[in-house]
Amino acid sequence: MNHLQGLLQTDPVVAAAGIDLLADALAAQGAAVTRVEWQPPVPGTEEALAALAADPAKASADDAALAALTGTRPHLVGMVPAHQAIPELAEGLLLHAGPPLSWGDCSGPMRGALIGALLYEGRAADPEEAGRLAARVPLEPCHHHHAAGPMAGVISASMPLAVVEDAATGRRAYSTLNEGLGKVLRYGAFAPEVIDRLHWMQAVLGPVLAAALARTGPIDLGALIAQALQMGDDGHNRNRAGTSLLLRALGPALVEGEGPAADRGAVFRFIQGNDHFMLNLVMAAGKLASDAASGIAGSSLVTVMARNGTEFGIRLSGTGDRWFTAPAPEVEGLYLPGFSAADANADLGDSAITETVGLGGMAMAASPAIVGFVGGTAAGAVRRTLEMYAITRGEHPLYRLPILEGRGTPAGIDATLVARTGIAPQINTGIAGREAGVGMVGAGLVEAPMECFVQAVRGLAARWAGPPAG
Amino acid sequence: MNHLQGLLQTDPVVAAAGIDLLADALAAQGAAVTRVEWQPPVPGTEEALAALAADPAKASADDAALAALTGTRPHLVGMVPAHQAIPELAEGLLLHAGPPLSWGDCSGPMRGALIGALLYEGRAADPEEAGRLAARVPLEPCHHHHAAGPMAGVISASMPLAVVEDAATGRRAYSTLNEGLGKVLRYGAFAPEVIDRLHWMQAVLGPVLAAALARTGPIDLGALIAQALQMGDDGHNRNRAGTSLLLRALGPALVEGEGPAADRGAVFRFIQGNDHFMLNLVMAAGKLASDAASGIAGSSLVTVMARNGTEFGIRLSGTGDRWFTAPAPEVEGLYLPGFSAADANADLGDSAITETVGLGGMAMAASPAIVGFVGGTAAGAVRRTLEMYAITRGEHPLYRLPILEGRGTPAGIDATLVARTGIAPQINTGIAGREAGVGMVGAGLVEAPMECFVQAVRGLAARWAGPPAG
Repeated sequence: MNHLQGLLQTDPVVAAAGIDLLADALAAQGAAVTRVEWQPPVPGTEEALAALAADPAKASADDAALAALTGTRPHLVGMVPAHQAIPELAEGLLLHAGPPLSWGDCSGPMRGALIGALLYEGRAADPEEAGRLAARVPLEPCHHHHAAGPMAGVISASMPLAVVEDAATGRRAYSTLNEGLGKVLRYGAFAPEVIDRLHWMQAVLGPVLAAALARTGPIDLGALIAQALQMGDDGHNRNRAGTSLLLRALGPALVEGEGPAADRGAVFRFIQGNDHFMLNLVMAAGKLASDAASGIAGSSLVTVMARNGTEFGIRLSGTGDRWFTAPAPEVEGLYLPGFSAADANADLGDSAITETVGLGGMAMAASPAIVGFVGGTAAGAVRRTLEMYAITRGEHPLYRLPILEGRGTPAGIDATLVARTGIAPQINTGIAGREAGVGMVGAGLVEAPMECFVQAVRGLAARWAGPPAG
Repeated sequence: MNHLQGLLQTDPVVAAAGIDLLADALAAQGAAVTRVEWQPPVPGTEEALAALAADPAKASADDAALAALTGTRPHLVGMVPAHQAIPELAEGLLLHAGPPLSWGDCSGPMRGALIGALLYEGRAADPEEAGRLAARVPLEPCHHHHAAGPMAGVISASMPLAVVEDAATGRRAYSTLNEGLGKVLRYGAFAPEVIDRLHWMQAVLGPVLAAALARTGPIDLGALIAQALQMGDDGHNRNRAGTSLLLRALGPALVEGEGPAADRGAVFRFIQGNDHFMLNLVMAAGKLASDAASGIAGSSLVTVMARNGTEFGIRLSGTGDRWFTAPAPEVEGLYLPGFSAADANADLGDSAITETVGLGGMAMAASPAIVGFVGGTAAGAVRRTLEMYAITRGEHPLYRLPILEGRGTPAGIDATLVARTGIAPQINTGIAGREAGVGMVGAGLVEAPMECFVQAVRGLAARWAGPPAG
């Protein structure tokens, strides 16, 4: 009662949500107004959001998906030839980044990478022959095979893959090994130097690392990533700390290992010369988390964001294997000398798996120095992370942000929050040249297309309304 | 004229400096007041500051000292037994941290480290004999011999020293190699495990690193430190990134080097297991800069801040080799399990050379994660750096702070600015147990004693007033 009496004895205070007209009028009359940010949901999602909000089981489904997404404990356990991990590759299949794609729809860099893979495998003698063959080769997304690949993300039978395993469940995910920056296959380059490097990675890098891992035992990637966030990495486009910590973990085994010291030294130098080496391992760790969080009925948590250079596609936990796609957006970025936005392909790569698990664009507050690579300001990087908490279900228990006093990174993008706020997930990424064969031209920032989330929210609501169509 | 007419047509604006009485009175009358922070100089420095302000050559002297301090380019060029770098050590001399000290004035950890050094050198059979001998052994500061040592900073003849060289001038500085944390000589411990480790460092660590450096050639420490600041190090109590980058630079030589692989592997593991390994090298780099900036007539730039566990001492560029001392302060810190402030010795070590050159407490904005080690908050770490710009002559051209959009660290502490503002340099540091033999008990934050700066400013002014006394 005292509380209610108090209300009568004090001045009224107004909370105004949404458009400013009312708040402005009150303020002009001298009233105290607390403005609450609010805006209508993204058009076309109103009914779906209402339907999903009425699902009494949704909150616990989302909690379960978040717990799975943030609860995997990824360990690097080995290296294998790709066809051992994914047998269909031995029959000629090629994997690529992003949602499903046919040769006819491929962008320049995706064509370049597929051509390069066929040259590397010895299935074609020159780029022309490889191009003709590529039109007939079966293509499937990496994401359909427990794998993730940066940029074009092409995986062929002979490439060495990193094997990342969840300690508790034995679940596995795979990634290629990072080639470095510049003229590299994943950016669509296929010059002889690119193919030679891939052969060296197959003959030396993969086996030497496999032998080193046999000595070290499993390396706890989650712990390395968590430490790297304390050291200025975002886990997507800045991986200097993660790469350094990985080299520290591998170092004694490379010093004391068997086989030619020159090979072990060359492997140390290769990783030492490539601050992005850790990226692919972070992606495999991300894919492990993504797989664990998939297929929880009713959950609107995003489990995949991936781009094939033509389309951007997402998947939700509650809609399982279904892709929701939109045209791949352009990237706002910084360009390497000699290149400009005119040379840029649209957004490309499975690397947005990092954002999906609370790294990359979600964790930019950890990485003020990344703005030298992808553009923007350090203050903007912190703001970007702060904004992302509005669209995530929670915070990552292991990945923490020192500048935010140890707060967990925004983790578990909720498609309903994206649709309700109109705030799109922020991704930082590399930029490939639009012509096949060019390679990397820059790096920058991009927003996931809102259309994917509109379709996904509607797709989830339709599934909830009745049994799925198929 | 338009400008002056404008003044008559607009309302007056008042700038109020110092005490708030006037500003408050004006504000109460509705006038616009801009408050300028001002306070009287530290008592006892008024005349000296006035005299120094009248020196027309002072600004250029300070600029020259700052240019020297921030212009050295330190390279790690080798490892040598201490007596080769500092021949007096072969005759029985021991070096220690901080300003000059006699055995009778030594704190517990300093006594412990001197006892340990005599045991290590085989000059005494047990701690009691070493204690009796220590009272007769000549002691001199590291700073008198182009060297710097963390905590007790004891250097004896057989210890391996890192050799750091300025590429342009060939000038050299030296530091011991970091033993790790916990029970170690520099924190005053002298148990058999401590002495055994020192013997291993002499027999294996030093020679293996010397051989590795012969293969790599000089390692650019300035570039490593600059990168480490982009990766969350402050260069004093957080050196995980710098240590990682050093291991990356040394790695190939450790893999491919000659001699037993087990020794090279043990060296890799030792550095991998000690995230403070880089600290001593940063200190030698700092000593190089400090020496370069010393002895510039008329300059009030601080070239040395160092503590021997009993006294805190500073030197200015313009007063050369003269020490200005005050009792060593207590450190506010976080304690290791089982220890508390009651176990803590007063401030100790040459490691404040890092603050002297724009690192450590000056650079805490680079290192939000350091607060887990030394206490405080990430926001406080940024504020600490921002406050330090008020007492530094400039900003370091190479050491930059990503969260401050790449601004250089506050560099070149000016004793006259310290005296004028009353703002003391901030240092972060380890804490030694007050009893000999205990070792490390914590880490924390401390302010350099104002009394040192009062004496130093007066000493410099007295020198300027007439020829120095001696």
